[in-house]
Amino acid sequence: MVGTSFKQNLKEKYGITFKNEGLLEEAFTHSSYVNEHRDNKYRDYEKLEFLGDAVLELAVSDYLYRHFPELNEGQLTRMRSNIVRTEGFSVFAIECGFPDEINLGKGEEKIGARSRKTLLEDVFEAFNGALFLDQGMEAVESFLQLTVYPLIDSGEFTDSRDYKTDLQELLQVDGPIKIEYQVLEETKQPSNFKVALYVEDKKISEGEGHNKKAAEQVAAKVALTKYEKE
Amino acid sequence: MVGTSFKQNLKEKYGITFKNEGLLEEAFTHSSYVNEHRDNKYRDYEKLEFLGDAVLELAVSDYLYRHFPELNEGQLTRMRSNIVRTEGFSVFAIECGFPDEINLGKGEEKIGARSRKTLLEDVFEAFNGALFLDQGMEAVESFLQLTVYPLIDSGEFTDSRDYKTDLQELLQVDGPIKIEYQVLEETKQPSNFKVALYVEDKKISEGEGHNKKAAEQVAAKVALTKYEKE
Repeated sequence: MVGTSFKQNLKEKYGITFKNEGLLEEAFTHSSYVNEHRDNKYRDYEKLEFLGDAVLELAVSDYLYRHFPELNEGQLTRMRSNIVRTEGFSVFAIECGFPDEINLGKGEEKIGARSRKTLLEDVFEAFNGALFLDQGMEAVESFLQLTVYPLIDSGEFTDSRDYKTDLQELLQVDGPIKIEYQVLEETKQPSNFKVALYVEDKKISEGEGHNKKAAEQVAAKVALTKYEKE
Repeated sequence: MVGTSFKQNLKEKYGITFKNEGLLEEAFTHSSYVNEHRDNKYRDYEKLEFLGDAVLELAVSDYLYRHFPELNEGQLTRMRSNIVRTEGFSVFAIECGFPDEINLGKGEEKIGARSRKTLLEDVFEAFNGALFLDQGMEAVESFLQLTVYPLIDSGEFTDSRDYKTDLQELLQVDGPIKIEYQVLEETKQPSNFKVALYVEDKKISEGEGHNKKAAEQVAAKVALTKYEKE
């Protein structure tokens, strides 16, 4: 069961007190626990996770839309997936002390499920689903303001920019343009690739990386810098 | 440009008057139109679509969660994808008279983009994104109450139930169980498949259909009825 000191911490650190404590309990209950206590009619967090997933998707989309006006739709979409689609939320679940509160079946406990990233992410989603039902979207946003949003601001999710796609979008605004990558050198142990980038058969840049994809990203990044200067 | 009579209709039929008419205009502007009028600095709907996508995802999730308490998480997720992931929204775009208002480039107009389902769905998402920015989530929900929600209530999206997955979820609650489908008969012209469903090597049901997948769905449906009676 969700502990008193955890609830106290939620209140002090995040200003959250659940009106319906049953929702909070549900958000922390894994199906394995429900299966072990069939007589007690516990509910697992899966439906709250279904809702929380959409709650976080909108909260993050809205935040990105308002705070990164310079990004285009493709860049916003990629940043959103970096935040929402990965196991990134598990970090916040740990930071908020969620792991210790999860109601887990004995079998799952044994195999270390309590520290499994996917499970922690599920619980983080379920918690936000519960908070949304209990207190609405503003409460969720206030909570994210203290957890997820600062990490977005820090640029944590912007690094994995897809330069190849960005370059394509930049060049093909007015219609198709031929963009080609050619492998120049390929060495093994250690693996290293060198590629050249051609736009309409004219060499624009080169890139190196530990695999072909990484080398192409570097070449695209260099090309983007050139075009953006123009 | 979005017409006066359309705006009048929005007001009378859906109770919507945009405070920021620029957002409404943006929601109806295709990138091909922007490219043809570069001097005028129009904005296309793509960023509003990015936001609207998440707005609709949450609105639909919230509605399903509250109105279908008997469904489990898997069923809710499938219903949500049936509504959100298909081109289903294009129907509402047409119903609301959106097609005539879209600012479209001449080339796109020529190839019939104005009636393209994917484009209409994009505009429907963008419109909801604009409405969300202009007036918040409640306004979006009121609009959906007059458009999307009644179709959800009618059961339009529940039919494509995935019986195979439901069966699997039902049987594998306590751990893995062997579920097998075996083709019994296969005829061509007209194509007809007959399959048998085995659970832990015991034959449970049969199913027929125009392809293997359809036959398996029928067999799973019959099996589900049997198990649910137990």
